[in-house]
Amino acid sequence: MSLKLRIIPLGGCGEIGKNMTVFEYGDQIIIIDAGIMFPENDMLGIDLIIPDYNYLIDKADKVQAILITHGHEDHIGALRHLMGIVDAPIYATRLTAGLIRGKIREAKLVGELDLRTIGAGDVIHIGDFTIEPFHVAHSIPDGVGYGITTPVGLIVHTGDYKFDHTPVDGWAPDFAKLAEFSQRGVLCLLADSTNAERPGWTPSETVITAAFDRLFQEAQGRVIVATFASLISRIQQVTDTAAQYGRKLAITGRSMKTNVRIARELGYLNIPDAMLIDINQANQLSPRKVAILATGSQGEPTAVIGRLAHDRHHSLKIQKGDTVVLSAHPIPGNEEMIYRIINRLLQRGADVLHEAIANVHVSGHASREEMKLMINLVKPKFFVPIHGELRHLKAHGQLAQEMGIPERNISVVENGAPLELDEYNLSVGSRIPGRYIFVDGSGVGDIGPAVIRDRERLADSGFFIAIAEVDDQGKLKGKPELLSRGFVYLEESTDLMVGAEKTIANAINNSGQQGRQLRKKVQSALAKYLYAETGRRPMVHAVIR
Amino acid sequence: MSLKLRIIPLGGCGEIGKNMTVFEYGDQIIIIDAGIMFPENDMLGIDLIIPDYNYLIDKADKVQAILITHGHEDHIGALRHLMGIVDAPIYATRLTAGLIRGKIREAKLVGELDLRTIGAGDVIHIGDFTIEPFHVAHSIPDGVGYGITTPVGLIVHTGDYKFDHTPVDGWAPDFAKLAEFSQRGVLCLLADSTNAERPGWTPSETVITAAFDRLFQEAQGRVIVATFASLISRIQQVTDTAAQYGRKLAITGRSMKTNVRIARELGYLNIPDAMLIDINQANQLSPRKVAILATGSQGEPTAVIGRLAHDRHHSLKIQKGDTVVLSAHPIPGNEEMIYRIINRLLQRGADVLHEAIANVHVSGHASREEMKLMINLVKPKFFVPIHGELRHLKAHGQLAQEMGIPERNISVVENGAPLELDEYNLSVGSRIPGRYIFVDGSGVGDIGPAVIRDRERLADSGFFIAIAEVDDQGKLKGKPELLSRGFVYLEESTDLMVGAEKTIANAINNSGQQGRQLRKKVQSALAKYLYAETGRRPMVHAVIR
Repeated sequence: MSLKLRIIPLGGCGEIGKNMTVFEYGDQIIIIDAGIMFPENDMLGIDLIIPDYNYLIDKADKVQAILITHGHEDHIGALRHLMGIVDAPIYATRLTAGLIRGKIREAKLVGELDLRTIGAGDVIHIGDFTIEPFHVAHSIPDGVGYGITTPVGLIVHTGDYKFDHTPVDGWAPDFAKLAEFSQRGVLCLLADSTNAERPGWTPSETVITAAFDRLFQEAQGRVIVATFASLISRIQQVTDTAAQYGRKLAITGRSMKTNVRIARELGYLNIPDAMLIDINQANQLSPRKVAILATGSQGEPTAVIGRLAHDRHHSLKIQKGDTVVLSAHPIPGNEEMIYRIINRLLQRGADVLHEAIANVHVSGHASREEMKLMINLVKPKFFVPIHGELRHLKAHGQLAQEMGIPERNISVVENGAPLELDEYNLSVGSRIPGRYIFVDGSGVGDIGPAVIRDRERLADSGFFIAIAEVDDQGKLKGKPELLSRGFVYLEESTDLMVGAEKTIANAINNSGQQGRQLRKKVQSALAKYLYAETGRRPMVHAVIR
Repeated sequence: MSLKLRIIPLGGCGEIGKNMTVFEYGDQIIIIDAGIMFPENDMLGIDLIIPDYNYLIDKADKVQAILITHGHEDHIGALRHLMGIVDAPIYATRLTAGLIRGKIREAKLVGELDLRTIGAGDVIHIGDFTIEPFHVAHSIPDGVGYGITTPVGLIVHTGDYKFDHTPVDGWAPDFAKLAEFSQRGVLCLLADSTNAERPGWTPSETVITAAFDRLFQEAQGRVIVATFASLISRIQQVTDTAAQYGRKLAITGRSMKTNVRIARELGYLNIPDAMLIDINQANQLSPRKVAILATGSQGEPTAVIGRLAHDRHHSLKIQKGDTVVLSAHPIPGNEEMIYRIINRLLQRGADVLHEAIANVHVSGHASREEMKLMINLVKPKFFVPIHGELRHLKAHGQLAQEMGIPERNISVVENGAPLELDEYNLSVGSRIPGRYIFVDGSGVGDIGPAVIRDRERLADSGFFIAIAEVDDQGKLKGKPELLSRGFVYLEESTDLMVGAEKTIANAINNSGQQGRQLRKKVQSALAKYLYAETGRRPMVHAVIR
């Protein structure tokens, strides 16, 4: 019986196969990407989410390679965690490798890093696999997809991509390589589904140039552009337009500074030294001579734009006549924060341009017509939509079916469901147990649903704690001590506190109960009283001594 | 010196002049609308927000009338609170009055209700004001705007509107009345700005008919349509299409049932008795014979669709072949919840149609071309954009300027800023102090930023409380009692607890301090220790006895 290739999407929340995909054949494993996900709004207090590596723990020595598609956080951000389990070389293109090195240096792990720089067009033999990275266009330069020749056939993994004929860096997607793959015969295509609900063709990055040109021309004061720190091509466009209109450029925000430095060092970003100024210099110049690149396009309150909106930046202040450009698309869940920040900036006298009213952003992902082109270029036997929520994968799967791939050859799976492939069949094995691994502070995976539920409860109505002493007669001794936060405004709640004291006294005196039973009785009497008085359900604890 | 008319937008959060507008001339006041706002995601634990009525408290006896534009919550939901302060008749059209009566009955206040039914086209004299309600099209039937003839001139307030030439109820907007107003001369137009960032013309409600027809035709199983309970025309469309394809109709969800009952009683909704079934009957019928109307189009976890997505509905279960239609637009802040519910429904085997992929919803508000038509129909001297966030108002104001209204005649203000008008001038008076009035449980306005900040802190990292006894020598007596929730998973944190006990002992023993000072010392030592160990900052309290 011949072996099957197992392809296992792992990941954080929401998107499938985005953060990490495992390819396993016999005793050989390669991994594509190791990224983080950002928590949803109701995952309270969680900093980020990493894939559940449990499956790899007792197979760590089988891992031959970690292949990275591009330098975004959701593809490289969990490398530092994966490195604690898996000791395999990491393969990445030049810019991606530079960004990884920066990350790992921050985490003080550099000594351990076996990072191998590859280029699109290379052919790399790793055990039973032959790896062929091919160039794709995306919202960060130097992105690749991978052709992976396995013992069962050729698999093509697109990474994140769009078919941009006129990318800012002039490096168009490698159509020829995809066509070549199809000539060899592709067993299975795994393709980016992010925009599977968007009809048409995603506009080229260069369409933004016109909008930038116009807004720089019309701006009466400073131009402040917020975008993703990794959107190097956008940074290049801002630089070029600023130069054209005789403006100097200040870079603000930690991640923006880091990425600009790395991208300039490696030659992916061209900013003349003479153009760069710091914020203090910017504050000295005439507003019409100044452009500023900033972080915070997602409304993050502690990034530069968030601080400007709330007038909490140490050296920069919004002034009338400023034009603020949010050159980004709201990530679902961030809309409310972003709109609030737009309103605040308007309040302070800035003009604000954003995607909804100006042509200042395009997506980095393929739309439906590009997806069709990808399928027709590659002509795979089997099709597996990845990179998207279930709704995107379903839509992408349906599109593939409409294009003639038989339904039985299309597999829409969720994270943890192993695809099993041979030359003839694609099936889904039984699900590998796994969960979200929450990172909160320095804790990794130590917080589960119970803690989150407590946080929800506390967020909703706070807590109310009573500390009471009971004498030998089973009577309340003295006054109970009450401690409460997030429940009511204590200074205006004297009556409520007096009532709570009475409730506690009534529950304790003559109850004849003690220990755990008495504590429960006091807690339930208190909870009932507080709900009756306020309609709220704080977390109630009683400590009986 | 002649008196000025003061127009004061009041309101909750975000949108301006949406929930309530006060018109004041001399000793006479009329109010338009009294609505609630829903809290933003970071207003933790808050149920809803009502306008700050403080300005009205010592002027309550001057209020002549409360005019209601239409029956949406953000226009009528705060009447029950306003009635506690102001004792004036409420004027509303028939359906709106029916919905108000339902609300007030729920709040058990009906005895006090002086509700006067009016109709579009009426002319009502109230003190120095002449009120002329005129019909508008919106996403609920029987909506009106108001022409208000005041001693300084004619003011037109559009309410929420769109120019729908083919509304489902056949009742087109009253263009003639608007034109007549302009012939008389309009001093000031206050107009709905919700869609001021949307180019073009909002499609008619009837364009959805085609999409519904197609999906009912194609659906192999049950059709479950979620929409706003107040979107009576949508409910009519679902009814009509279901009837056409021989399906019975079940109504689910409390607000949906209530509104359907009221709208049927008043003749605004036509559903034959024979068509209506309950859920149990629906479960007996062939899926192809069933349509279900449901609440939960905004992803609310406790509404029908939310329960179905999480398989927590008492008598209904998603089955393979169901088509679920989300016939609504995500309100900003709800996107993440809605997408999660879509993914869950797909997981359970349903097909899901929503606005992004099918023509199943249109907005109830005018887009930019309609806004232009409104301005040209009314030809006001002064223009005040209302109903929208600041970003929408700015865009609407700019549009008015592009259409030739001089900048000085346009006023973009925020809630609480009084517009002062006479025949010749529009100016903005000094801001009336006000804030958001949060409703949480039965408490109205008793929660402010301090409580919310505590809830944020608790949501982020929970709390950690230590109760320690100190003997006469100032030494820790026995073991401190530790209480913590929402911080770490206690069962796996034994070492941390032991370390915390040691930290407390070290802080107390030989400190020479007592009382408040000692407590602070223990708290700060504990907070430092916990942060060093976990990278988290729970709310830390020490109780020293």
